[in-house]
Order: sequence, then structure tokens, then C-alpha cells
Amino acid sequence: MRLATLRDGSRDGRLVVVSPDSAHYVPAPVGTLQEALERWSDIAADLAAIDHFPARLDPATLAAPLPRAWQWLDGSAFESHGALMDKVLGITPEKTGLPLMYQGLSDRFYGPTDAVPMPDENLGIDFEGEFGVIVDDVPMGIRAADALNHIRLIVQINDWSLRMLAGPEMKTGFGWVQAKPACSMAPFAVTPEELGDQWRNGRVCMHLLVDWNGARFGAANGEAMGFGFHELVAHAARTRHLPAGTVIGSGTVSNPNFREVGSSCIAERRGIEIVDEGAPRTPFMRFGDRIRMEAQTRDGRAPFGIIDQHVLAYQGA
Amino acid sequence: MRLATLRDGSRDGRLVVVSPDSAHYVPAPVGTLQEALERWSDIAADLAAIDHFPARLDPATLAAPLPRAWQWLDGSAFESHGALMDKVLGITPEKTGLPLMYQGLSDRFYGPTDAVPMPDENLGIDFEGEFGVIVDDVPMGIRAADALNHIRLIVQINDWSLRMLAGPEMKTGFGWVQAKPACSMAPFAVTPEELGDQWRNGRVCMHLLVDWNGARFGAANGEAMGFGFHELVAHAARTRHLPAGTVIGSGTVSNPNFREVGSSCIAERRGIEIVDEGAPRTPFMRFGDRIRMEAQTRDGRAPFGIIDQHVLAYQGA
Repeated sequence: MRLATLRDGSRDGRLVVVSPDSAHYVPAPVGTLQEALERWSDIAADLAAIDHFPARLDPATLAAPLPRAWQWLDGSAFESHGALMDKVLGITPEKTGLPLMYQGLSDRFYGPTDAVPMPDENLGIDFEGEFGVIVDDVPMGIRAADALNHIRLIVQINDWSLRMLAGPEMKTGFGWVQAKPACSMAPFAVTPEELGDQWRNGRVCMHLLVDWNGARFGAANGEAMGFGFHELVAHAARTRHLPAGTVIGSGTVSNPNFREVGSSCIAERRGIEIVDEGAPRTPFMRFGDRIRMEAQTRDGRAPFGIIDQHVLAYQGA
Repeated sequence: MRLATLRDGSRDGRLVVVSPDSAHYVPAPVGTLQEALERWSDIAADLAAIDHFPARLDPATLAAPLPRAWQWLDGSAFESHGALMDKVLGITPEKTGLPLMYQGLSDRFYGPTDAVPMPDENLGIDFEGEFGVIVDDVPMGIRAADALNHIRLIVQINDWSLRMLAGPEMKTGFGWVQAKPACSMAPFAVTPEELGDQWRNGRVCMHLLVDWNGARFGAANGEAMGFGFHELVAHAARTRHLPAGTVIGSGTVSNPNFREVGSSCIAERRGIEIVDEGAPRTPFMRFGDRIRMEAQTRDGRAPFGIIDQHVLAYQGA
């Protein structure tokens, strides 16, 4: 089952069920994705049984499948990325054996083709291609094995980052506020079974194709996560209940052979350049730059659809 | 004007306007505080004009005035507290000249008399008495002077903390997730004019009386904030719009003469003991412990009402 949200002028949009070929849809019998997640066990079977999609889908009308969420907790579960970033930021984290995770802005997720306003071209504008899961209500203290059953939907995310602000904020110990503006989501939230055997061990085992201004920038695979999403959910829920609609992110998809497969964010490529050449060569994004992200199955399908958007100058308060 | 929310079985409760003597109320002409904040400029004058409070208020029926919020950004704006905590946690933050701030759990605020379940007595259960403001929609990039006009309500908060988890999470650079469970709010959210000249320079210039198991623990004054709330709002909004209902916290209220006035959290007292005696003497909270917090005006009024709650053992997932 694949779900999307049409813009309708409201903050939460209108939930629709999308056809297997992504070209058609039907309004869901529940108004919003948030409401569906709160009533998931009652409503999921009805949604999954839908097989008639009378309306033609115009991709330009799509919001993020979940346009706002009560909670967004983003991990950094790809070790090859984390080790590079620590080096670049001059940080020596203690080894805890626990997932890395921060709480980010969740009151707004940009849609897949929304232009993204940024306040300043000199803040190190960067994309981060990643996967995420959306849970129903998860009780505090859940074990990882049980958390797997609360992962109701899988999404593809662009976690926008402002790198010039990231290092200083990390060094406060308080984590990121200014360095992490709103994220974007690919158009379709999909149930785990939709991915077949490319969802396994709580990981999205698919290539994430990242193109920056039309040139291939990365094609890393999601299987390399050091922790599965079920382990991230259990980590998040250790001392809190997670409300239905909580989104948990993987962090930038990254593979140890990043010199071959490329990267899912500019910071990682700059890190490689620093290690290999002593200094970064690749600049961050400029206003007008485009970013396209598409996670592909082995047979070339894109179950999450495509993020394709550009950055523009914020016009001021 | 003073607003409260009655429990009614829904996640957002029922907004009411409270009489000057806190003993009576009338249902507001808008259902929830979130809705009121989204329509503040249309509705605030009508709410403020209400002067007939026919119903008797039972404090036991009160939820947090804002039972859940789209965003909670907590500062650490009292320098005497910050300096001590850095010492205790073994952290040497870089001096940035900017406010310290993290994004915390906002999908649930406990009510003023709710018992608070914690998963483990050995995690260093601590209270943090602080003040907070609630804004209407704030545009990205706002200046501090303009941010003052978006501060619509002031609240009093107990920011629950699990200290054994706080230091390790800070050292990751990602900030707190597990160390910061849901916060509690005192019963009444008040407009700035309700505080008269005890709201000035974006600061709540009132004593915060903190009693732990019936013994006075602290009586620090909110005037000592190193940044005013308007500066915290502007900091938060540098790279993001703040949705109506965003709550911004001051961090633990603390005064440089903490040896005389006491502290608003246990960690601060333990920090003083470490500095003065080489080791902490005061234990953290135990299941069954009570915490009471009351901010008082010069003439002994408590405009926010009183937080009075106890900790209990979480019974498991």
C-alpha cells in the first residue's frame, strides 16, 4: 500500500491511496495520514483492500505524505558517514554503543517538488538523502523486536542542513536547532511489505540515487545501517511514549566504499576530499541549485516516488 | 488574561478562561489553546473582554494549558546554572555569544498535578523549574525587538530530566533525547500584561519557589536570564518559521547567589556540593517523591498556579 497527501489548503492536506503505477489515486476513507496512523489497527486493512483508483494523479499537487508530525527523531546510523563527519567537525565522540539521535523540527515537512527557501547562501546549504519510518503509538520501554511491528510506513527524506551552523551547535552539547531547517519528503509513504525482500532486518535495502544539478552524486545502499530502524525506535522510546505519526530517520545513507558509490550529502564528499587531498573542493549549494533523489528497487521501480526541488533565497520576515 | 485547559478525554482538552481569583472559569469561545494561538489576533480581544466566570474550577480537572505543542525549544539562559553544569558534566563549551537551545519532546505536557511515571529510579530523576513563553506564528528571520510582540502567553514549566543520561548524550553532540522525558506545566497560561512590571526586558521577574518533599529547595528569580525571551525566540527563528503554539523555555531558573537562594533543580545543588565539598551529597528523586513549584509575585500571588506532583514507577510497555 502506498499513501500520499494532496494539498488542499489545510495544514495536514488530504490523504489518498495511490495506484501501483503511481499514476492514479483515490481519496482515503480517513482524512489525513495523522488520523490514519492514530487508528491504524482499525483502518489499515480497509486501506490495503482498495484496488480502484479513478482519479489521475498530478505530481505537482502532492504535499509531503505527512505534512507535519508530532515528533521527528533523526538518527545517524551509517557508520561510514558518522566517522567522516566527526573528523571534519573536529569532534571525538565517546563510544557508547548506542545509536546517535537528535530531535528535529517536525511541524513542517516540505513536499517533494516544493522550492525550499534558505536565509543565506553562505551557511553551507546541504542536502542529506535518507530513509525514515513512521510508527503508530509506541509505548515507552518497548524492545527492538517488538518495535518492528509498530513500523507502519517507510518514507524517503531530504534532511536539509546548514553546515556552517552544525559544528558550533554540536560543540554546545545541546544538538542542532539553527543547523536543521525543515526536511522534505518524497511523495509516497509505503507499507513495509510493499518493498518485499528489500525491507529486511529493519533496513531499506535499496540504492538511493542522488543527483545534484543533473549530475549523479551518490548511489549508496540503505542496507549498511549500523542499527536497524526497530533498534532506533526502541532507542527513541526508552524514556518516552512515541505518539502515532512519529518519524524516525536513518541519517544520511552512506556506504564504506563511498569513493565508488558516492555520497548522499555534500558534507560527506567534502570530508572525503579533506581526508584524501587535505582540503574540500566541492562547494555547498547555491540558490537555484536542484536536488533530485530517487530510491530504486533492483528492478528499477521507485516506490517512494521522486524528490525533485530547488533552493531559493528566502525573501525575509 | 489567564487561560487553562480542562481534561475532556481528547488530546488537546477544552480551553477555558479563568477568573482573577483562580476559583472560577468559563469555557472559551474557541475549543483549544492551539486553535486560539493560530487565530490570536482575531480572538485575543474577545477572550480578554470576558468578565463573567460562572463555573467553579476544580484544580484536579486541569491538564497542562497546552497539552501538546508542535514545537518545544528549551534554552539554558541562566549563566550561573550553565557554568556549574558544564563543570559537573566535564564539558568545556565554546563561547559563541549565542543562546544555548535544544529541541525537546513536545507531543505531551503533563498537567500540574499529574503523577509522572519514570522507567528507572537509577537514572538520576530531577526536576527543573523554569519559565516559558508561547508564541503565535513567527516568521523566519525575525529580529529580537519584533519577536517580543509574538510572545502571547507565559507559562511555568517543570522540565523533567534524567541526569545519568544527560552527560553521555551531550558528549555525542546530538543533544538530548532519552535524558529529557515530557515536561509538566503549571495550570495557567497568562498574557504578559497580567504580570505587570514583573514582565520586563523579556524576563519573568518573579521568584520561583521550589519545594521538594515539603522542604524549600529554591527561590531563585527569573530576572537573571542572560538572554530575554524575545532573544530566545529570534534565535530559534533564525532558520525556521515557528508555528503558532511553539513553546520556548528559559532553562532552569538560577541566580549567581545560589548558595543563599537555593536552586531550581537537584543537579545544580549537586554541582555546588561538588565545587564546595568535592562530591555531591544530595541524591536524585525517588519514586513517591513530591515536587511543588510556585512562582510568586511581590504581593504573594501565584499567577501561573501551582505544580504539585509526584514521581512513580512506570509499569512497563
